[in-house]
Amino acid sequence: MTRELLSGFPVVIELPIQWGEMDAYGHVNNTVFFRFFESARIAFLDRCGFLAAHGELEVGAILHSTACRFRRPLFYPDTISVGARASEVLTDRFIMEYKIVSHSQDEVVAEGTGTVVSFDYNTRSKTDLPEMVREGLARLR
Amino acid sequence: MTRELLSGFPVVIELPIQWGEMDAYGHVNNTVFFRFFESARIAFLDRCGFLAAHGELEVGAILHSTACRFRRPLFYPDTISVGARASEVLTDRFIMEYKIVSHSQDEVVAEGTGTVVSFDYNTRSKTDLPEMVREGLARLR
Amino acid sequence: MTRELLSGFPVVIELPIQWGEMDAYGHVNNTVFFRFFESARIAFLDRCGFLAAHGELEVGAILHSTACRFRRPLFYPDTISVGARASEVLTDRFIMEYKIVSHSQDEVVAEGTGTVVSFDYNTRSKTDLPEMVREGLARLR
Amino acid sequence: MTRELLSGFPVVIELPIQWGEMDAYGHVNNTVFFRFFESARIAFLDRCGFLAAHGELEVGAILHSTACRFRRPLFYPDTISVGARASEVLTDRFIMEYKIVSHSQDEVVAEGTGTVVSFDYNTRSKTDLPEMVREGLARLR
Repeated sequence: MTRELLSGFPVVIELPIQWGEMDAYGHVNNTVFFRFFESARIAFLDRCGFLAAHGELEVGAILHSTACRFRRPLFYPDTISVGARASEVLTDRFIMEYKIVSHSQDEVVAEGTGTVVSFDYNTRSKTDLPEMVREGLARLR
Repeated sequence: MTRELLSGFPVVIELPIQWGEMDAYGHVNNTVFFRFFESARIAFLDRCGFLAAHGELEVGAILHSTACRFRRPLFYPDTISVGARASEVLTDRFIMEYKIVSHSQDEVVAEGTGTVVSFDYNTRSKTDLPEMVREGLARLR
Repeated sequence: MTRELLSGFPVVIELPIQWGEMDAYGHVNNTVFFRFFESARIAFLDRCGFLAAHGELEVGAILHSTACRFRRPLFYPDTISVGARASEVLTDRFIMEYKIVSHSQDEVVAEGTGTVVSFDYNTRSKTDLPEMVREGLARLR
Repeated sequence: MTRELLSGFPVVIELPIQWGEMDAYGHVNNTVFFRFFESARIAFLDRCGFLAAHGELEVGAILHSTACRFRRPLFYPDTISVGARASEVLTDRFIMEYKIVSHSQDEVVAEGTGTVVSFDYNTRSKTDLPEMVREGLARLR
């Protein structure tokens, strides 16, 4: 079921919920969902070649903006699967989508988006997506 | 200048940047911006009477969704001002806007939004904004 | 090897390192090690019956003090195993030991201790360890 | 009173408690106390010249171990003062002491220690404390 809920997401990571991620309301704090998105994004950037591009070309990925729609509270103990995909690829950026599924609830608990911009650390300005990243993104689709 | 950048925000809190809020890229991690928004939101919920409503009526504020547009990297050491306001008030929810200003940069480093939904802990369902909150929101405008 | 390094620890949890747990020095931040200890402690408190005692008797476990000796830096990506055990059981408290092993380094990266005190939420004061916890601790040895 | 409780501490920082620093038990989570210690330690390392030594000599400060004794729970809203001092200076390290005072409780809520070791990033090994740091430590006493 978790697998079905995450079909269409080429990169999926699994994370255990830690007790200390809950806040005074007794459920996982909203900021932690962005940590989960970040962990899926880093895995995605690795898979599409952007982490390698950062090392080889000094062209890295910068988080321009991000958003989360919280659908259900999340509790300890649980394990989540976090899916990431690029929903739209533009010249100097791509739009990512995230989905978090709770294993114990067997439901989507949150969905999100993020815009990742290509940044040249030499010229310190935005730049086109490196060819190796563009190919990596195509491969992941 | 910080004051001008935050004009129109009835609730403004001030926070010091802590060194440990920076990540491996050497600037404040994206998840921490949502902690800053949360701190401003809690101060706003206090000021508009929603924390009191939670205690008196068991009607509380639930974060439905939130978003951040990162404009500039933020570094330690620095102090920030975080403004919060309700930009739109609907029957069972209101939309919040956040703005973070860096004192050392004298610039807006991030802007955000959040949707806060009124939730009745007795019936465990969405409900209209309590009258005391509606009055509090009007007072803050 | 990880298993050998953690022999003598009845409770062992496994956690993936998240990229965002690294700080500006490029390794996992010191405060995160205490989050790892906490996660192992909660698992241990569950296994020895202290979480149940909290619910049934309103006698809970309070963290009196804790310490960490950092042996090696920890990096993303990696997975860790965190062991927890009670090394000494006294009338109203027990001493815990923690050990963190990095899978990629196949080495102990940190060791720690913690003192857990039995607290009666009815009288709001320290109290003897509940019998069910004492039995649970004996069972785990 | 806060001032008296922190007499003997040459470096004192002030921090607001953020709501999100509380955990499911409704008080500030234990790991956050180490964030507070860290923030005071960084301020201390700045004041004694260790941050400058890192830049000039590539000799930096590494956290060898740290400990905390929790004396009282800490809640939002509150402001804390965190004191840091070097209690003992050895050849290649010094021992730090921390003390956290809650303004609203007017009491010490936690005390801690940390061992900071001098590390040469060129040779990647422990080294004697730089002379400029030794002088800085003397000045702060």
